[in-house]
Amino acid sequence: MQTPLKIAVVGSGLVGSLLAIYLKKAGHEVHVYDRSPDIRKITFSGRSINLAMSDRGWKALDGVGVGDAVREIAIPMDKRAIHLVDKLNYQQYGKDGESIYSISRGTLNRKMIDLAEAAGAEFYFEQKIWDVTLSDATLHIGETERGEWEDKKYDLVFGADGAFSRVRHRMQRQSMFNYSQEFLNMGYKELHIPANPDGSHKLDKHSFHIWPRGEYMLIALPNLDGSFTCTLFMPFEGENSFAELTNQESVTDFFEKNFPDSIEVIPMLTEDFFKNPTSTLVTMKCFPWTFKDKVALVGDACHAIVPFYGQGMNAGFEDITVLYQLIEKYGDDWQTVFSEYEKERKPNADAIAELSYRNFMEMSTKTADEKFLLQKRIEKHFSEKYPEKWIPLYSRVTFSDRPYTEALAIGDFQNEIMQKILQLENIEQIWDSEWVEQKILAALEQA
Amino acid sequence: MQTPLKIAVVGSGLVGSLLAIYLKKAGHEVHVYDRSPDIRKITFSGRSINLAMSDRGWKALDGVGVGDAVREIAIPMDKRAIHLVDKLNYQQYGKDGESIYSISRGTLNRKMIDLAEAAGAEFYFEQKIWDVTLSDATLHIGETERGEWEDKKYDLVFGADGAFSRVRHRMQRQSMFNYSQEFLNMGYKELHIPANPDGSHKLDKHSFHIWPRGEYMLIALPNLDGSFTCTLFMPFEGENSFAELTNQESVTDFFEKNFPDSIEVIPMLTEDFFKNPTSTLVTMKCFPWTFKDKVALVGDACHAIVPFYGQGMNAGFEDITVLYQLIEKYGDDWQTVFSEYEKERKPNADAIAELSYRNFMEMSTKTADEKFLLQKRIEKHFSEKYPEKWIPLYSRVTFSDRPYTEALAIGDFQNEIMQKILQLENIEQIWDSEWVEQKILAALEQA
Repeated sequence: MQTPLKIAVVGSGLVGSLLAIYLKKAGHEVHVYDRSPDIRKITFSGRSINLAMSDRGWKALDGVGVGDAVREIAIPMDKRAIHLVDKLNYQQYGKDGESIYSISRGTLNRKMIDLAEAAGAEFYFEQKIWDVTLSDATLHIGETERGEWEDKKYDLVFGADGAFSRVRHRMQRQSMFNYSQEFLNMGYKELHIPANPDGSHKLDKHSFHIWPRGEYMLIALPNLDGSFTCTLFMPFEGENSFAELTNQESVTDFFEKNFPDSIEVIPMLTEDFFKNPTSTLVTMKCFPWTFKDKVALVGDACHAIVPFYGQGMNAGFEDITVLYQLIEKYGDDWQTVFSEYEKERKPNADAIAELSYRNFMEMSTKTADEKFLLQKRIEKHFSEKYPEKWIPLYSRVTFSDRPYTEALAIGDFQNEIMQKILQLENIEQIWDSEWVEQKILAALEQA
Repeated sequence: MQTPLKIAVVGSGLVGSLLAIYLKKAGHEVHVYDRSPDIRKITFSGRSINLAMSDRGWKALDGVGVGDAVREIAIPMDKRAIHLVDKLNYQQYGKDGESIYSISRGTLNRKMIDLAEAAGAEFYFEQKIWDVTLSDATLHIGETERGEWEDKKYDLVFGADGAFSRVRHRMQRQSMFNYSQEFLNMGYKELHIPANPDGSHKLDKHSFHIWPRGEYMLIALPNLDGSFTCTLFMPFEGENSFAELTNQESVTDFFEKNFPDSIEVIPMLTEDFFKNPTSTLVTMKCFPWTFKDKVALVGDACHAIVPFYGQGMNAGFEDITVLYQLIEKYGDDWQTVFSEYEKERKPNADAIAELSYRNFMEMSTKTADEKFLLQKRIEKHFSEKYPEKWIPLYSRVTFSDRPYTEALAIGDFQNEIMQKILQLENIEQIWDSEWVEQKILAALEQA
C-alpha cells in the first residue's frame, strides 16, 4: 500500500510502540529510540497511575491484531467503589457488559515493546535525542546535550516522546507555533495495596476504588498479581496538602482520619509515601503537530492531559487509529496524511483536555454540592428510562469511538437542559416525576 | 540603600536599558548584554511599529530623571485621524492636554542606551547568551549554540531579552512552569511616508493615523524628521491577506482600492512592501517570572502582548517602576523583592494582554457593527456630561497609572451596563435623552 520508508519513532512508550506495530504493518523499516533503559530489564519507577483502557484503546489494539494479547493482562472494572468515610457505595459505569480495564503501565509497556519487536520494529535504548533537524528528518544523538552528537537521517520521524518531547521542542522554536503548558496546583503519589497471602485481592477486584474528599482523593486500581496500585491526588500547598505531610505521624494521622478503611490494606504507607516521588500534572496543547511530510507528533507529545477522565492513553492510541486510516486513504502522500491527521485530531485532543480538566474541577469543588448530586440523580433516572435519548457524557467518552468533540458538545447541551430543570419549583421533591421527564423530553425535542 | 551587587541584564532593548539606569541609581555594577550589534552603529531593520508612549511610560522615565531627554524625541498625538475610504474623521483621545507620544523605536533605543551608559552601565554587544544557570546566576556565552562557551557569574541576572527570551527558555524547563505562546493569524509590515521636501509632514503631525478596514488596517505614526512610519496589519491567508499580494500590481491595486488617500504619500509602496519582512504577532504568558533571589524576567520576556492597545513598552516600563518601589521597600531582601514583584505584576500583565487582544478582536470584527458604534456614541455622550462618573476604558489604560486589572474590571462593568442600555426600546432614537442618562446613573449607583 505504501512505498517502504525508513522511519524513526522517538519514544518507546505505549503510543510509540503501538505506532511501530502499525508502521510495520504498512511495510516500513522502523527504528524506535528511547533515552531510558529497556523497561523490560528494570524495575518500574513508583510514579505511575494505573491505566484504564476503554473502547478507543481497544479499537486501536484490535486494529492491528494485538488486542487479545493485551486482554490477558487487563482486569475489567464495571463500577466505581466509592469509599466514603463511613460507608462504601458502588456505581456502575455503563450498561451491563460495559467495563473499563485496569492495566499496569509497566506491564503494558513491556508487552507493547515485545509485540512491536515481534512485528519487526528495532529498538534502540539509552539513546538520547537532543535535537532534530526537521527539514530532513535527522536525529541528533549523543551522551550529553553539549557533547559529541551522531546524526541519523530518516525519511520520516515521529515524536512519541511524551509531554516534554524533544522533537516538539525543536518545532516550538518555529515561528507561528502555538504552545501552552499549564500545571495544576495538585500533585500525585503512588502507594501500594499488596495481595493477600493467597494471592487474592484485598478489595473488590472488579471495581475502580475511589476515596473522594473534595480537594484531594485516593484511588486504587487492581493488578494481576492481587495487588492494587493506589494514587493519592492532593494539592502541593495549603490545608490538606503534600506540604502538610512532612513526617510519619502526620501521614498516618491524615490517612486514619480521612481514609480510615485504607489503613489496614496499605501496610507500607509511610515507607512508600516518603520513598515515592510526588509527581506533577500538566495540560499541554500545541499546534501544528506536523512539519511538512517529514515529522509528526503523536500522543502526549502533542496533547498531554490531566488523568481525571482516564483518557490519556486512549486518546493517544486513537491518534494511531486515525493516522492509519489516513495512510490507507492517501498512500504515499504523507503531506496530506499529516495535514489531515492534525486537522482531524487537534479539536478532539482539545475536547478531551477540556473534559479531563473539568472532571478535576468537578471532583474538587462539586462533589459536596447538593444541586450537583441531584442533577446526577435526575440524569441517571432519565437515562435509565430513555437510554436512547440520553447517553451520559461518561459513556460517550468511554464506551464509544465517536469524536470527543461530539461528546463535549452533547454533554454541554445536556447540561444546559439540566440547569433549567434544576430551576423548577420544588425540584427536590418532584425530580423523579412524570412531569419532569416530560420537561426533559420537550427540551430534547427542541434540539 | 542596597548592598552593591554585580548584575547582568540580558537584552539592551528599551526595558533592559531603562532597568540598567535604575540599577545604577540603586548603586550596582551593571553589565548589559545583547546578541545583536550596537543599534547605535547600524541602520534599523524595517520591521518596527512606532511606539506610543503614554502615562505609565513617562512615569517610569521621570522616576529616574530621563523623561525630558526622551520628550525631545517624542511627538504628541492628541487624536486619531480616521481615514475612511471617502472621508477623514478626527477623534480626540482624552481630555484637553492629554496625548500619547509617537517615538521611533530605533531612535528611542539609541537614546536609552546612551542614557544608560551615561549612568555608568557597561554594554557588551554581539554577545550570544545560549543558556543561564539559574541557581548561581551564571551566563553561558559563545559564538554558536554547540561551540565553546564562556561562563560569566553574577549576583543577579535579569532577562530583558524579549518574547523569545533565552533566560526564560531555561526557566521553562523547570517543573511547574506555566507557559503559553499564541500567534495571531495576522502579520504586519512596515511601510514609509517620507517628509515633504521642506521637511514638513505630509499628514497631520499630531494625529495617530488609522485606516480601519475590519480584518485589516493601516496605521501611520509621525517621526521627528517629517516622515511617518506606517504599519499594515493583515491576515496571512485568505481574502485580503498577505498571501494575496504577491506582485507589484496586486499591491498597488489593493492600496488604490482600500487606502486611496495613502497612495500619493507612500511613493515607495511596492519597493518597501517586497523589501520589508512580514512579521508575526504573539501573545506570550508565563509564570513564575523569577527564580529565588537570583533571576528575574522583565518586559516582553515575561509578558509579550499584541500591539493593539499601544501598551507593550508602557507595561514593560511599569515593571521597572514597580521593581524599584519594591527595592526601596525591601532593600537587600531580593527574594522578597522578586516574589512581590511577580505577584503584583502578573495579574496586571494578564489584564493588558487581554485588553490588547480584545482590541484586535474589536478592530477586526466590530468596527462595522451598528450596535457597537451606537454604544461608543452613548458612552462618549455620557462621559462628556459626567466625566467623574464615566472614565472611558481607553483613558484608564492610557492616561492613568492605576492598575491594568482595575481598568479591565471597571471596563467590564461599564460594558455590562451598556449591554442593558442597548436593549432599551427605541434606543437608536433616544440614545442621547435625559431618560437614558438617568438609566445609566441608576445602574452606576448599584455598583
